[in-house]
Amino acid sequence: MPREISGFSNPLVKRVRSLRDKKFRRVEGLFLAEGLRILTEALDVGAVPEMLWHAPDSAAHPLVVALATATEAAGGEVLVTTPDILSKLSGKDNPQAVLGVYPERWTALADVDRNAAPIWIVAQALRDPGNLGTILRTGDAVGAGGLILIDDCTDPFSAEAVRASMGALFTQHIVQARWGEFLDWLRAEPDGSRSQLIGTSLNTSTDYQTPRYAAPAFLLVGNEAQGLPAAYEAECDLLVKMPMRGKADSLNAAVATAVMAYELLNQTRRA
Amino acid sequence: MPREISGFSNPLVKRVRSLRDKKFRRVEGLFLAEGLRILTEALDVGAVPEMLWHAPDSAAHPLVVALATATEAAGGEVLVTTPDILSKLSGKDNPQAVLGVYPERWTALADVDRNAAPIWIVAQALRDPGNLGTILRTGDAVGAGGLILIDDCTDPFSAEAVRASMGALFTQHIVQARWGEFLDWLRAEPDGSRSQLIGTSLNTSTDYQTPRYAAPAFLLVGNEAQGLPAAYEAECDLLVKMPMRGKADSLNAAVATAVMAYELLNQTRRA
Repeated sequence: MPREISGFSNPLVKRVRSLRDKKFRRVEGLFLAEGLRILTEALDVGAVPEMLWHAPDSAAHPLVVALATATEAAGGEVLVTTPDILSKLSGKDNPQAVLGVYPERWTALADVDRNAAPIWIVAQALRDPGNLGTILRTGDAVGAGGLILIDDCTDPFSAEAVRASMGALFTQHIVQARWGEFLDWLRAEPDGSRSQLIGTSLNTSTDYQTPRYAAPAFLLVGNEAQGLPAAYEAECDLLVKMPMRGKADSLNAAVATAVMAYELLNQTRRA
Repeated sequence: MPREISGFSNPLVKRVRSLRDKKFRRVEGLFLAEGLRILTEALDVGAVPEMLWHAPDSAAHPLVVALATATEAAGGEVLVTTPDILSKLSGKDNPQAVLGVYPERWTALADVDRNAAPIWIVAQALRDPGNLGTILRTGDAVGAGGLILIDDCTDPFSAEAVRASMGALFTQHIVQARWGEFLDWLRAEPDGSRSQLIGTSLNTSTDYQTPRYAAPAFLLVGNEAQGLPAAYEAECDLLVKMPMRGKADSLNAAVATAVMAYELLNQTRRA
């Protein structure tokens, strides 16, 4: 049975609201996702919230019913609350109809099966949550296996990253690793082959459409302002660049990732 | 000679700060751009600020000297002020070293020479300023001529759009038009030929790499949440879609634009 919560001072309201802070997300191991579309896509891939919050007038919506049923069946809790409290939880004036609290979805590097997908995206010191979420969304679209975060990246479970991912957060593996640890793992090939580590760089004359890419390909994306450190570029099997016809010398990080990722996918489609 | 401004209550501080509001930008016909990199790229293409603001300790920086010299030579004003006031003007805790006030750069549709560039991007009801700025940046990279804004798009001269454009705002023509007006202009071909209007859509089975695109191509991008209205799709010469291998059915608007724009550029490069 759904529990009704109408008081702003309810400790559960305070606790869920605190998940907008990275510090509390790490302590609780939980994060927030909002909106019927994202929660329903999560449910489609088997991700059920530990808590489902919605307003009374959403109770009859068939997608909300499906979410509530799944939440309770999995031992989670359904909470019916006022639009004002939903607004407080989401931090937005016009909150979405539903809000879910999910366990953070980290995959350990050792658990990644690189041959499960033709493309993996590796982000180094990516700082913008919108870029990170957009890269997850693109990863889902090109059939990537996941996103490996190197160095100090923005948190993939922040509200902005979750929103920009449009549900891809629930389909992509999310891994955090140190650079050395990632390289050791990458080079310890299970079958003696060599996975391609591909970096985009200004320090090359190789056009991104020239090489023949091979799966599994690891697409390495650098920090928005600095690009990849030289030492990281040196570890790449391939450095490539996109043609730039204007005044600028670089693309937005999520855009560059997408242009590269679609080139990889297109080569697979032609093969 | 630079003028020194140290008081928060100075009317010029108030006036420049008001440019963070769209309403005041429209009244004044001016907008703000921040950061040495963007202002220097603007100068490289001949865009000189009407006002250049910087802190005293930036005065000796050679790029600031170049900007200040150009500003004064063009009859503009150089203002030296405190980091606190720069912070107030930019609305950021860590303001950039320089801030420029520029005339809004609108191009009238009638003044667009479509044959001056192989690609033009047309955005319909685009709402996110980050997406709009990123699309301008991508447009610069692929050698597009400019961005034509249809219906109620977010303001290209907002701080966030200017920042995301990374200077491309100064190289791309920016046009605002009603849909009917744009269509009339598009179909009134100067030489009796037919420009391609290309939409991305879920309502087609044509892969985006199948058609042969011809310059000048007009790439039509829809609203982030709704995509293109059916009536707009009906006017397109080509509807295409990108392969989607995951759960999601769409890409971020700026990403979809970039994937399409690079396909257009790549076909030109092969031709």
